[in-house]
Amino acid sequence: MKTILLQLDTDPQPSSFDRVVAVDAGVEELFSYGGITPENVESLVHGAMFTRGPSDLQNTAIFIGGSDVAAGEALFEKVQSIFFGPMRVSVMMDSNGSNTTAAAAVLAAAKHLTLAETEALVLGGTGPVGLRAAQLLAMEGANVRLASRARDRAAAACEQITSSVPTVKLTPCASDDAEATAGAQLIIAAGAAGVQFLSAEQRTSIEGLKVAIDLNAVPPLGLEGIDVFDKAVEKEGQICYGAIGVGGTKMKIHKAAIRRLFEANDQSLDTEAIYRLGQSL
Amino acid sequence: MKTILLQLDTDPQPSSFDRVVAVDAGVEELFSYGGITPENVESLVHGAMFTRGPSDLQNTAIFIGGSDVAAGEALFEKVQSIFFGPMRVSVMMDSNGSNTTAAAAVLAAAKHLTLAETEALVLGGTGPVGLRAAQLLAMEGANVRLASRARDRAAAACEQITSSVPTVKLTPCASDDAEATAGAQLIIAAGAAGVQFLSAEQRTSIEGLKVAIDLNAVPPLGLEGIDVFDKAVEKEGQICYGAIGVGGTKMKIHKAAIRRLFEANDQSLDTEAIYRLGQSL
Amino acid sequence: MKTILLQLDTDPQPSSFDRVVAVDAGVEELFSYGGITPENVESLVHGAMFTRGPSDLQNTAIFIGGSDVAAGEALFEKVQSIFFGPMRVSVMMDSNGSNTTAAAAVLAAAKHLTLAETEALVLGGTGPVGLRAAQLLAMEGANVRLASRARDRAAAACEQITSSVPTVKLTPCASDDAEATAGAQLIIAAGAAGVQFLSAEQRTSIEGLKVAIDLNAVPPLGLEGIDVFDKAVEKEGQICYGAIGVGGTKMKIHKAAIRRLFEANDQSLDTEAIYRLGQSL
Repeated sequence: MKTILLQLDTDPQPSSFDRVVAVDAGVEELFSYGGITPENVESLVHGAMFTRGPSDLQNTAIFIGGSDVAAGEALFEKVQSIFFGPMRVSVMMDSNGSNTTAAAAVLAAAKHLTLAETEALVLGGTGPVGLRAAQLLAMEGANVRLASRARDRAAAACEQITSSVPTVKLTPCASDDAEATAGAQLIIAAGAAGVQFLSAEQRTSIEGLKVAIDLNAVPPLGLEGIDVFDKAVEKEGQICYGAIGVGGTKMKIHKAAIRRLFEANDQSLDTEAIYRLGQSL
Repeated sequence: MKTILLQLDTDPQPSSFDRVVAVDAGVEELFSYGGITPENVESLVHGAMFTRGPSDLQNTAIFIGGSDVAAGEALFEKVQSIFFGPMRVSVMMDSNGSNTTAAAAVLAAAKHLTLAETEALVLGGTGPVGLRAAQLLAMEGANVRLASRARDRAAAACEQITSSVPTVKLTPCASDDAEATAGAQLIIAAGAAGVQFLSAEQRTSIEGLKVAIDLNAVPPLGLEGIDVFDKAVEKEGQICYGAIGVGGTKMKIHKAAIRRLFEANDQSLDTEAIYRLGQSL
Repeated sequence: MKTILLQLDTDPQPSSFDRVVAVDAGVEELFSYGGITPENVESLVHGAMFTRGPSDLQNTAIFIGGSDVAAGEALFEKVQSIFFGPMRVSVMMDSNGSNTTAAAAVLAAAKHLTLAETEALVLGGTGPVGLRAAQLLAMEGANVRLASRARDRAAAACEQITSSVPTVKLTPCASDDAEATAGAQLIIAAGAAGVQFLSAEQRTSIEGLKVAIDLNAVPPLGLEGIDVFDKAVEKEGQICYGAIGVGGTKMKIHKAAIRRLFEANDQSLDTEAIYRLGQSL
């Protein structure tokens, strides 16, 4: 029996990126759908649930993607609400690469730092990748400063994380606040394209900063002086990563997560599950 | 040369159910199209007809599906009108599972009854599955009462069947007419979701009723007391089938029909052809 | 690593013709997209460029098709503008079969004529296939008369060709001009369906006409007396080809071009490249 992946994409055209990765992860049949919403997804999920016997359901799975992460989250929730009892298939959500990218960034940091003892700063912390990186760092015991241009938006993002993971240590701050960077040992920049958070001078003058990761793939990056290809490159005593430098790990995690979907029919691969899987690689 | 199935679906998104079944039936390449109408289908059919040599055309075939059975019928007719001479590929029509479901229900009944000597009642007989079940039962020689809420709609459905199969024995009746059930040895309920035709008391009080089949997959069923999983379960002396109980046979017929498409390039799998194929399994 | 072809089609539904040919050319995974424009193509191309390592990029390629040749040309240009440095994949453009058909027609002529010494006439020379056939004949050294109903449109088409290939010999003329046919040794008719350029009498009375090729697949053809199945059939001393007679070579070129895409990641298969490839078969 062939493995079948339903790619449910919230964009009009299903992502070719996700399709290539699915093929390279070994998926045998890929059913790609674009323009999927909570309103039109039910019959597609039923087609996955009701075609193969219960003991064969682990050979069918669902991947949720698209450029709009909020739309992907709503779809992820809806898909899971359609399952009942053993009538379910495994599902992974990685809209815009948000989960695999955040996981890869935090795993890169963990190669050089003991996260539970780390002062971390996430710039662009209210975006989908920043939010997820902050959540993972906090779950690993780091003291996390979540920064946004507006402090109140940062505070709302912290509350969003603590509402689902109450024990974590998160502090909201404004991106341009000098206090934000003071004492940071790890910085992950996850801002929008074209937004520079720190000049090279500002970055290199942060005392004790050990690891700097910039997830923007298009120059200018958020942390001046970092190159998109940097992969654990030491610059002025700081270990630097660019988006492509983190990309190899991201792809490994993405493919491993796709394969995990077919090991059982009850996997729900969200931010944490994808990170834990990345840890085990 | 790989087998290629063009899935032409009248819904905006091609059915994932039909895709999974096609893969499990062994189709090697599946081209799935949604939003197909008689107006936009021609070039898709030409692409199936004009790409492989005449002796290889049996490796390409067309499946017509979608939730709207009338739209599927119109598409089925249009597709066949595009072929000419030996330039044709095999086609199967099974919009909303109507043909495979009707065939499976009648074959389930035939396990327990000699259809040619049976008094049969089809409830919800004007819907696509009911209409097809009534046609098949009548073709097998049964005396068929085709019931609808409105007797005139039942009469129109009977005329529709007899116009193409003139020798069959069909009687229209109203669903709530006590006469309809009197003496019925077989009842097939093919109504809309949520419509209960007979209470358990009404059903069990029909003298001589041997087989009761309910094709509704969502409770409440049309025949109270039947469970969707029932498969030849005896209840109060009546042999009962629910939708999932019939579903195994339906899936077998569906897969066998897909495989049949690739045995020659001139197969036209409509209601009767699909039923005959099911009989031969 | 599997070969992946992105089929980017400018029509709402991706061509089933091109899909079948891709499968028969050995493509292992086919990602078919309809409704593609220069505006929505970028992320699809990025997905092809950024998923596999540079040394594996030759296993991913792009095919541009659709019924609108001008739209296909615009898309072809846009796709290539997205590549940079070694980050590219091979691309083939064959909207409406224009390149493979023109190549096959010229190659058919070349079997019987020394093109560099040939007086050639292309009827319907302003359409996509005619324009391409005229370009290829002129590049091979033929004296080419490019005919259209309106001489000024023919002149514009000649200028379009000479602007990119300045050394060629092209003369614009009006289709109904008796001068156009006088002395022609080769005629390729590439007009719209239903347009007859020459009656059988006109055609057979052209002194010195050796090869007559009609690319219209639907009767009545542009050159009366030719049959769509004619393949080097001699009629009244003229060697005749119809659309299907040329079609076998067209299909061979199409499949060979698809395979060529996967030999390197920097192929750009346009009119001339596809013709040269056809020559080498």
